[in-house]
Amino acid sequence: MTQNTLVNRRLVLAERPQGEPTQETLQLNETAIPSAGDQQMLLRTEYLSLDPYMRGRMSDAPSYAEPVQLGEVMIGATVAQVVSSNLKNFAVGDWMLSFNGWQDYALSDGSGVTNLGSKPAHPSWALGILGMPGFTAWAGLTQIGKPKAGETLVVAAATGPVGATVGQIGKLLGCRVVGVAGGEEKCRYAVEELGFDACLDHKAADFAEQLAQATPAGIDIYYENVGGKVLDAVLPLLNANARVPVCGLVSQYNATQLPEGPDRMNWLMGLILCKKITMQGFIIFDDFGHLYPEFAKEMTQWIEKGEIKYREEIISGLEKAPEAFIGLLKGENFGKRVIHVAAG
Amino acid sequence: MTQNTLVNRRLVLAERPQGEPTQETLQLNETAIPSAGDQQMLLRTEYLSLDPYMRGRMSDAPSYAEPVQLGEVMIGATVAQVVSSNLKNFAVGDWMLSFNGWQDYALSDGSGVTNLGSKPAHPSWALGILGMPGFTAWAGLTQIGKPKAGETLVVAAATGPVGATVGQIGKLLGCRVVGVAGGEEKCRYAVEELGFDACLDHKAADFAEQLAQATPAGIDIYYENVGGKVLDAVLPLLNANARVPVCGLVSQYNATQLPEGPDRMNWLMGLILCKKITMQGFIIFDDFGHLYPEFAKEMTQWIEKGEIKYREEIISGLEKAPEAFIGLLKGENFGKRVIHVAAG
Repeated sequence: MTQNTLVNRRLVLAERPQGEPTQETLQLNETAIPSAGDQQMLLRTEYLSLDPYMRGRMSDAPSYAEPVQLGEVMIGATVAQVVSSNLKNFAVGDWMLSFNGWQDYALSDGSGVTNLGSKPAHPSWALGILGMPGFTAWAGLTQIGKPKAGETLVVAAATGPVGATVGQIGKLLGCRVVGVAGGEEKCRYAVEELGFDACLDHKAADFAEQLAQATPAGIDIYYENVGGKVLDAVLPLLNANARVPVCGLVSQYNATQLPEGPDRMNWLMGLILCKKITMQGFIIFDDFGHLYPEFAKEMTQWIEKGEIKYREEIISGLEKAPEAFIGLLKGENFGKRVIHVAAG
Repeated sequence: MTQNTLVNRRLVLAERPQGEPTQETLQLNETAIPSAGDQQMLLRTEYLSLDPYMRGRMSDAPSYAEPVQLGEVMIGATVAQVVSSNLKNFAVGDWMLSFNGWQDYALSDGSGVTNLGSKPAHPSWALGILGMPGFTAWAGLTQIGKPKAGETLVVAAATGPVGATVGQIGKLLGCRVVGVAGGEEKCRYAVEELGFDACLDHKAADFAEQLAQATPAGIDIYYENVGGKVLDAVLPLLNANARVPVCGLVSQYNATQLPEGPDRMNWLMGLILCKKITMQGFIIFDDFGHLYPEFAKEMTQWIEKGEIKYREEIISGLEKAPEAFIGLLKGENFGKRVIHVAAG
């Protein structure tokens, strides 16, 4: 069943995944479409963003944010249109960046919602290059990575919405940029379309050697979004005073236990000490929200001049979202994965 | 044999230690006292500083500094007097902060040497509270730890020259300060003499539980100078946006292999991410040398007002230095350990 005006389809968290989410993790059900009360508006979801952080919200392990409760609609950023409104400043037909979650309809009192106007050129971009992923790339790189021209920057998930943006900004700022991605096609895209100096396939048996060869002057900035074996290969190559913005660890999100030893935790501390490394974790709007206007202005200019490219992978149908999310965690996406909820 | 005017006693690196240094690591031998040539001066060592970083220089593992070569005099900071001088600005009898290493006499062309004048009040303090350890405490805490009044600061080696200074500065800046030290006597000293809010014995079986109880509002700053089990107990207690200046890892310096698993390295990365932690390694004069005048001014005022206390443990005789250093790595010192080379 596709989106309609009779029912509200919702994907609710049915069980907490152990390891990879499965088809049982989220359950599709239907409710009545709610009506907008006083000081409310009804939003109809057009696009739903899929992002790796959502895996964390499915878990009740301690984290920076509350987990989604069992039986509740899975959270998520959305681009939506106003269906009816009892709020001034929000007119029927206006496009919103909102947080409807994984469902067709949601009520809002306007708080935490950004009005994109009646005719945004690229509504879904508010979920990507002009939204959280783009801002995450820009702020982590500029505020923690602090790139200087001539330095070497390494970033994984090089064709994903964060990695692709990190690398392109790095090039604009004069860095040598080495990407890491899964498979030849993505690597070719990173070099030929995004302008990376090199991009390596982490599936190659000699990946660590390839990375060493591609970074002859060492690594000054490692924008961390995957962890695991990419991190393993990067650490010995870090230069003195290297910076490591810690944005994500997608290779670890489905892990159910710690890997076998030896225990390298104190070894990592020793590396941080001897090489005078800075590592900093960040949660984009908590730590850098005040910089959003600066980001939006700079990114809009880059896009208008054609200096930053952006690739989306739009999948039609809310019912496809669980499978698309499971694949996202495995790196199956090529570009920013968005669900076109109103289609399909 | 004590220091005299006939020979130069030297402790040279005889073999690289595997694990703990032993009595075979350094060898005492004698050479002729050199003569000052043109644009040189001859310095006689009065005090030799013993510091944990020296363990790293005994090893040829990659690090931020060149290792001492086998057969060479062990390096070290010293306070010395000018015996003869062919340099203007350096008069016979003047006291110098120099880098004679573990020996009675050394030549210098004046570079890298600080003239302390003819009658410094506490010459050996240039090796401690007013020198590298004090500056390390001040800069790591203020520049990376960035303490705010009301925050909780944890520091180990709480009666050592760095830890004691970190904690006292933390108190002056309004923090709740919890020290960690080895044994009841040191803990009592940290609380009663240095003014820490609490100090815990890391040898206690329930140390981790004690630390949790002593930090009811969590930990905002962990000044890392030991690693190992203190780090293990601290990590779960770190608050969001905690800062961890990584100054040293003395519990790990004699390690010959990585500990058994599981491997917690990616777990640590996940903690840095979820709690938005900043970890930064630093080498004091490389990273913060430009701030030394500011430190010296502020610390001198604190000492003059009696707001910072400083404890030395002076051991007489160059020949005692190897054993004293081995003990330092085990935490046997109580205060700043200095060898009075010219005595004994």
